[in-house]
Amino acid sequence: MQETFALRGNVIYTPECGRLELHPHSFLVCEEGKVAGVFPALPERWQEIPVEDFGDRLILPGLVDLHVHASQYTYRGLGMDMELLDWLEQNAFPEESRFADLAYARRAYEIFVGELVKSATTRACIFATLHRPATLVLMELLEKAGLPCYVGKVNMDRNSPDTLRETTEQSLAETRLWLEQSKDFAKVRPMLTPRFVPSCTDELMNGLGQLQREFGTAMQSHLSENLSEIQWVSQLCPNTRFYGEAYAQAGLFGGDCPTVMAHCVWSGAEERALMKQNGVFIAHCPQSNMNVSSGIAPIKSYLAEGQRVGLGSDVAGGAHLSIFRAMTDAIQCSKLRWRLVDQQTPALTLPEAFYMATKGGGAFFGKVGSFEPGYELDAIVMDDSALPTTRDCTLAERLERVVYLSDGQPCAKYAAGIRLF
Amino acid sequence: MQETFALRGNVIYTPECGRLELHPHSFLVCEEGKVAGVFPALPERWQEIPVEDFGDRLILPGLVDLHVHASQYTYRGLGMDMELLDWLEQNAFPEESRFADLAYARRAYEIFVGELVKSATTRACIFATLHRPATLVLMELLEKAGLPCYVGKVNMDRNSPDTLRETTEQSLAETRLWLEQSKDFAKVRPMLTPRFVPSCTDELMNGLGQLQREFGTAMQSHLSENLSEIQWVSQLCPNTRFYGEAYAQAGLFGGDCPTVMAHCVWSGAEERALMKQNGVFIAHCPQSNMNVSSGIAPIKSYLAEGQRVGLGSDVAGGAHLSIFRAMTDAIQCSKLRWRLVDQQTPALTLPEAFYMATKGGGAFFGKVGSFEPGYELDAIVMDDSALPTTRDCTLAERLERVVYLSDGQPCAKYAAGIRLF
Repeated sequence: MQETFALRGNVIYTPECGRLELHPHSFLVCEEGKVAGVFPALPERWQEIPVEDFGDRLILPGLVDLHVHASQYTYRGLGMDMELLDWLEQNAFPEESRFADLAYARRAYEIFVGELVKSATTRACIFATLHRPATLVLMELLEKAGLPCYVGKVNMDRNSPDTLRETTEQSLAETRLWLEQSKDFAKVRPMLTPRFVPSCTDELMNGLGQLQREFGTAMQSHLSENLSEIQWVSQLCPNTRFYGEAYAQAGLFGGDCPTVMAHCVWSGAEERALMKQNGVFIAHCPQSNMNVSSGIAPIKSYLAEGQRVGLGSDVAGGAHLSIFRAMTDAIQCSKLRWRLVDQQTPALTLPEAFYMATKGGGAFFGKVGSFEPGYELDAIVMDDSALPTTRDCTLAERLERVVYLSDGQPCAKYAAGIRLF
Repeated sequence: MQETFALRGNVIYTPECGRLELHPHSFLVCEEGKVAGVFPALPERWQEIPVEDFGDRLILPGLVDLHVHASQYTYRGLGMDMELLDWLEQNAFPEESRFADLAYARRAYEIFVGELVKSATTRACIFATLHRPATLVLMELLEKAGLPCYVGKVNMDRNSPDTLRETTEQSLAETRLWLEQSKDFAKVRPMLTPRFVPSCTDELMNGLGQLQREFGTAMQSHLSENLSEIQWVSQLCPNTRFYGEAYAQAGLFGGDCPTVMAHCVWSGAEERALMKQNGVFIAHCPQSNMNVSSGIAPIKSYLAEGQRVGLGSDVAGGAHLSIFRAMTDAIQCSKLRWRLVDQQTPALTLPEAFYMATKGGGAFFGKVGSFEPGYELDAIVMDDSALPTTRDCTLAERLERVVYLSDGQPCAKYAAGIRLF
């Protein structure tokens, strides 16, 4: 039931990277789930539609999380002193193995979806585990919550513990079955999710490529996250010149189907050229890149060269689901990168981070993440009155304070034209 | 009114850097404001004392903030895209100038103290502004709130706007008067606060050195925060070999009086040797060092060479008052430092960050920041039940989750043996 209505408040969005649109006390009109426009006064033709007046609060596009592991939510903020491979073996793999138990999976996913609903995130690209039934439970919960996310059943047929590995045949057959079963969902969509190159044989990767061509499915994975991983991939795939080519050889590196790669901390010139050519999205996950000691991705340069970049929480490599936090982490990391690595490339700005968190990542979902006419209405309402100050702040300053200081929880939230709370 | 009582709960503290003491469901006994011990059962001699039972919650030492600007609290999270000198000129200096108006100062300091009370911080070294009356208002508010902090009236007699500069004579006379007036406070103590070398003439610095010898006052300032600042200091003080020597030449670099220097991001071998020799405390402020693009201080090395290190929020260079956040920022920055600067020096661990946040910084205040017998009882009670997980966590894991994930607000708080809430 997508109605026509208007939201009233201080409307802020960013139609292009680096530029804020600021509309004090304006009307954001939603017509059948889509933005009709932002107006200082309600135009004549919409005089009769319901108006929700949010007073002096801020109305922003819903935030987009391009990379999050739902099954890792229950151990976010744990084992952060470990290095990546120890952390995977001691934390991630044993925990993910438990999702074979559907009751356990439901309990864990209910926690995750409950927190995601409360957050400022309206869209996400989500890793589940390799378990098809548990993945369907997660999709049901998201569907019921009204969050139009992509979800991936993970594929893993090598370099994984016995409790978390499929045979190649199983992996492909389960994926096909899951893609068929996923057709029942109206809002939640499946996406192919080979965990990363070390977890997937060439045969599996090629099979997933065929499934993608058959079903037209979106795809997500990890790319060039840390140096030892990259070296490992070059050993596993001796006929590749760079990490991303291992996906490309299976036909799984962008092109017709939306494709997002998490991290890209150490992507070289060839990889970057192919990402740009194929329209591959980059999910920048700065907190995770700190927590697992990966480094700092050259995001300012990616934006300058025209890459498609959004932000990811990467829970539980990142400890926080908040994409506001990801925005400030991205800015702070870019400042350290300027200071310690490359003084030719300036730091990211708040408007740039806000763009990545909204329209930048939102583009993965279509016309999402902006309040330009024709965009799906994803909106969050932020109340900054609990952040006391003696200063009179401009709208741009209030946005900055909300990003840096708020607890990240909106007081109202809309996804695809539907109010969630 | 310091009573004898016990707190019951899961007691965690760190008597030495890198080692956690974990006491599940134990009694923390406080005798006349001081820790008497931690016991699995209440010893015979204390059978009659009141016991506050916090059930399954965590009882930790109060956190210590070794560097925070109270007058900057109202503009935290603002102007973060500016570089340091622009930010000082456009944000800090105009705002601090307003503290000449005592009514404005009271309003701003009420907000700051209100938030500090709610936080996990029990002790802090606080910059006010150069205004003596406003500084006394801040001290009154802290005294009334029961927070045993150090507060500094700032000294500035050069390189500052007209609205925020004293003559040398004024600065010294006002400081003397303020030190006399500060004797009325029971808990809050004054500390000398030359803003930083560029703001203080040699004459002022020498005068403050004389005041320190006369009054035996503690002292705080900034040191080696960023490279252009260091270069400026070397021009201003041509007879120094390193930044810290400008303080040392005035007799203001440790020794008999507790001295804390914020940042020390770029301290060289000679400066470090003198800090160690004189017992100068280092206030590590990782979030501020990111926000104003300073760099990453080599804290792991400082700890290894026996420096005295605590954490600072450095609001408003840092946007967050939470010292839990400073702990995770410190760990994350140290991981990036390992990756990008020095792979010989491993990252900080959670127990090390917890030590800096408690006993490391607490040592500035005497026997503070631990639950060893004889320590002043500063304690916070953290309720982690609002951080849902499907996992059974150990006490050490619960500590890590509270540090990474909680909103930083305890459900009960004690400072120097007195319950604040």
